[in-house]
Amino acid sequence: MAGDTREQIMDATFAALCERGYADLTMQSIADEFEKSKSLLHYHFDSKEDLLVSFLEHLLEEFVADVEDCPETDPAQRLLWMAELVATGHGDDWAEDFHTAMLELRAQAPYNEAIREQLVHNDAVIREEIADIVREGIEAGQFREVDPEVFAATFRSAIEGAQSHEVILGEAAPTDDALAGVERLLVRDLLAEGVDLKG
Amino acid sequence: MAGDTREQIMDATFAALCERGYADLTMQSIADEFEKSKSLLHYHFDSKEDLLVSFLEHLLEEFVADVEDCPETDPAQRLLWMAELVATGHGDDWAEDFHTAMLELRAQAPYNEAIREQLVHNDAVIREEIADIVREGIEAGQFREVDPEVFAATFRSAIEGAQSHEVILGEAAPTDDALAGVERLLVRDLLAEGVDLKG
Repeated sequence: MAGDTREQIMDATFAALCERGYADLTMQSIADEFEKSKSLLHYHFDSKEDLLVSFLEHLLEEFVADVEDCPETDPAQRLLWMAELVATGHGDDWAEDFHTAMLELRAQAPYNEAIREQLVHNDAVIREEIADIVREGIEAGQFREVDPEVFAATFRSAIEGAQSHEVILGEAAPTDDALAGVERLLVRDLLAEGVDLKG
Repeated sequence: MAGDTREQIMDATFAALCERGYADLTMQSIADEFEKSKSLLHYHFDSKEDLLVSFLEHLLEEFVADVEDCPETDPAQRLLWMAELVATGHGDDWAEDFHTAMLELRAQAPYNEAIREQLVHNDAVIREEIADIVREGIEAGQFREVDPEVFAATFRSAIEGAQSHEVILGEAAPTDDALAGVERLLVRDLLAEGVDLKG
């Protein structure tokens, strides 16, 4: 499949998810957002499930690219930037609708082995990205010696939990407090003795 | 409604959710688990939504009672006990099926105002329970001075995030690491200088 066709199908899937949520997502609703023909969509993907697995793969690539392009170079600031990205999408317009659809999709994993498998892969890669930032901070002397995998699992739970609460509770979500705690209790606590948070 | 009828309806709802998940939950599937007549169910609840709101209220009461009956008296140990309860249901058989259904139900909050309202209430009460334990630890000199609300929001995000990952990722979920991090990075970090974790 040509790179730009794949990109267009992924954009159409994203648009359809934001517009309709996960429950009403169909190949037709994705085709409606796709500039090219519906038959081209079916040519590349046998089923909605196939397409969603590729979409999850695509989201992972985007996430990894975002983290690599992060404007911050300092490990602590990169963790805080990632926390804000996951919890709020940095306030982008699409974040609320997209995170709402993604929570529905993730909740289907126990019923769909292909989707669960891809989510397991995504989770492992994302935790490894977090652990790598922690290792980098330890090597640079910014962070104290912690277990990078343990930090990664808890940090990821906390920032994904904050995203879910934002979806579930809407305006009543305690996102500011949750992110303040991620900074004060998780990230600042990583700092080696005598090191201050920059920025 | 007599207390034991309410209790039986709540038990039937719990059983139906564990057995069928949220998507297939109907008044009929709840009636199938209920010892008394279906008409009694309809007499007390106008709709499935009404019943689910009451069920969420009931879960909150149970959670608060569980936390109050917690075998640990030490504030730090009570937080760890709560983390384990939320993330894994302390390993109870029903935990996986029930948490799977609850994730689906919570994911519906953006589409259902009555359910969201009850979840917002539950969230506020649970965070207050956590903050109260933190205040108690501060007053007793076990914990350093932290903002109890900020701790509560982040701790709750981390333990609910761990529960969601357990549902979504199944056996691949990094629950042990996530809980190890909750202990080492969140709860131990609360301890005042010179205080060790008991137990």
